[in-house]
Amino acid sequence: MTSRDIDVVGIGNALVDVLSHEADGFVEAQGLVKGSMTLIDAARALELYEAMAAGTEVSGGSAANTMVGVASLGGSAAYIGKVRDDQLGDIFVHDIRALGVEFDVSRAVNGDPTGRCMILVTPDGQRTMNTYLGASVTLTPDDVDPALVARARAVYLEGYLWDPPQAKDAMRKAAALCDDDQIVSLTLSDSFCVERHHDSFLDLIATHVDLLFANEHELAALTREHDDINTAVASARELVELAAITRGAAGSIVVTPDDTIVVPASPVAHRIDTTGAGDLYAAGFLYGLTHGHDLATCGALGSLAAAEVIGHIGPRPETDLAELAAPLLSGRAGRVP
Amino acid sequence: MTSRDIDVVGIGNALVDVLSHEADGFVEAQGLVKGSMTLIDAARALELYEAMAAGTEVSGGSAANTMVGVASLGGSAAYIGKVRDDQLGDIFVHDIRALGVEFDVSRAVNGDPTGRCMILVTPDGQRTMNTYLGASVTLTPDDVDPALVARARAVYLEGYLWDPPQAKDAMRKAAALCDDDQIVSLTLSDSFCVERHHDSFLDLIATHVDLLFANEHELAALTREHDDINTAVASARELVELAAITRGAAGSIVVTPDDTIVVPASPVAHRIDTTGAGDLYAAGFLYGLTHGHDLATCGALGSLAAAEVIGHIGPRPETDLAELAAPLLSGRAGRVP
Repeated sequence: MTSRDIDVVGIGNALVDVLSHEADGFVEAQGLVKGSMTLIDAARALELYEAMAAGTEVSGGSAANTMVGVASLGGSAAYIGKVRDDQLGDIFVHDIRALGVEFDVSRAVNGDPTGRCMILVTPDGQRTMNTYLGASVTLTPDDVDPALVARARAVYLEGYLWDPPQAKDAMRKAAALCDDDQIVSLTLSDSFCVERHHDSFLDLIATHVDLLFANEHELAALTREHDDINTAVASARELVELAAITRGAAGSIVVTPDDTIVVPASPVAHRIDTTGAGDLYAAGFLYGLTHGHDLATCGALGSLAAAEVIGHIGPRPETDLAELAAPLLSGRAGRVP
Repeated sequence: MTSRDIDVVGIGNALVDVLSHEADGFVEAQGLVKGSMTLIDAARALELYEAMAAGTEVSGGSAANTMVGVASLGGSAAYIGKVRDDQLGDIFVHDIRALGVEFDVSRAVNGDPTGRCMILVTPDGQRTMNTYLGASVTLTPDDVDPALVARARAVYLEGYLWDPPQAKDAMRKAAALCDDDQIVSLTLSDSFCVERHHDSFLDLIATHVDLLFANEHELAALTREHDDINTAVASARELVELAAITRGAAGSIVVTPDDTIVVPASPVAHRIDTTGAGDLYAAGFLYGLTHGHDLATCGALGSLAAAEVIGHIGPRPETDLAELAAPLLSGRAGRVP
């Protein structure tokens, strides 16, 4: 039997975030849908950047944020994603390693620069993302090391990565490498992303996915049940063994074949920036699941991690999540490390 | 007569800051003096970065922060400093322009990359800076456009820039270009910087400087009066027409030939990060002076701007300073714009 010494391996678009505070009017003037993610090319990235306010740069990338969250909770995590050998790539690699996540994917030495996500944070704390994928699209199946995947209890696939064809193959390879006792999880990432790839997502879920993460908009896009969350949840139950549906301030719903567990959101004193909230929910949930906690606890850990990241600018925890989670986990049964 | 349509032109090291939260023990283990600035080479920069926690990147540079502060107060500002044509250079140029500061210095197309300052923020909010100057040392007198200097009511020279010889000549050129009705101001920047350049600073001050900014440690290093602030202040009075001496939580002292004005610090609810506090004090003071306010008001504006920047991570204001300053300025005489 293979030794599973990593809790979760995440695969996703490796990005550096450029965050700026903008008025609602700016988002509108730029023709953007508040709260969504838009893929942009290099020319549009330049145009938008020139129009944006002064920014703060922090490492991001959805699955990368999730892996950082797993590590912050005290779990072990590894990441697969692609950056270039440029300054933003230096920042990405430094930060993910400094946060305790194993990262050994070779860097692109030519082609597009490291990808970035321009995130407009409006006064309501909502974020509107504009992603220039750059080098992250050059991830290929060769970057997925079977030995690394074999060490993981769970694999976490980022729906955003379904856009570039080679990267899609890399995700499929990672999923196919998994044994029956490994958890293959997928996050749908964005409702527009689900619309773009509807059938192939359904196919991936049917073939490989054990655990699905989605917010209610993404779930509606996947199940084509837009009117009633309960119908959408029932539909999800047919598609996958386990699903965790996030609903913002309304918390989340954990869906199993026989059960529907409603998990409240954790209180957030000041909603500063929701960037990374979904990513960190997945981190808490995956940490719980790979540490033998019951599903209600997994959901509660997701709520806790999401609340931390909403309370400040940037998509990665600023507080030690293991410390924050200690009162919650005290006395609850879990896997002995 | 030349039209003075710029309040302040600042000249300094153009840097991007890399901020991380570190324990006191880390600062000590790295052999650093808390609160000071150390110049480091490329190899040391790499070594320190590898040891540092995950960071946040924001545009910085002492005089650049000051110019941003002047603009945020509603003044007009321009900046002279050097970055390379790399990604950190893109960030620096974007941010300073987005914040309303005129910046047109050509970028270096070869040589060292854009300079950066690795700032370790300890739990007490103190910052310890490690500067890799990179491209910023390649600023030359040719980068100082006489037409730009002629448009300014005040020129602001950053002591840090006294380290690279060509840049020193650039500062001297800017100072020498000024007419009698223009204010030449200098900030000493750092006590170690003063020690390194003691005699040439005294010479610059005697020859060109109308207004000197220093904190009490820098003043002690300049005047060699380490024991008593009053003796140091008396000594400063002999050196320069006008001095503003900052004393952290104790506020500041404005020194004229005939008067000593004690200015209280503005209250800071949470001392998060003192990076940029001195830079923003200078911004408030210079804004006040170029808008015809009395010296007590200039000092109060400095206190107000410094307090804003201490309340959050990063060296540049996150709040509109003009709005913050409005109650203070209401009813006080100033220059009609």
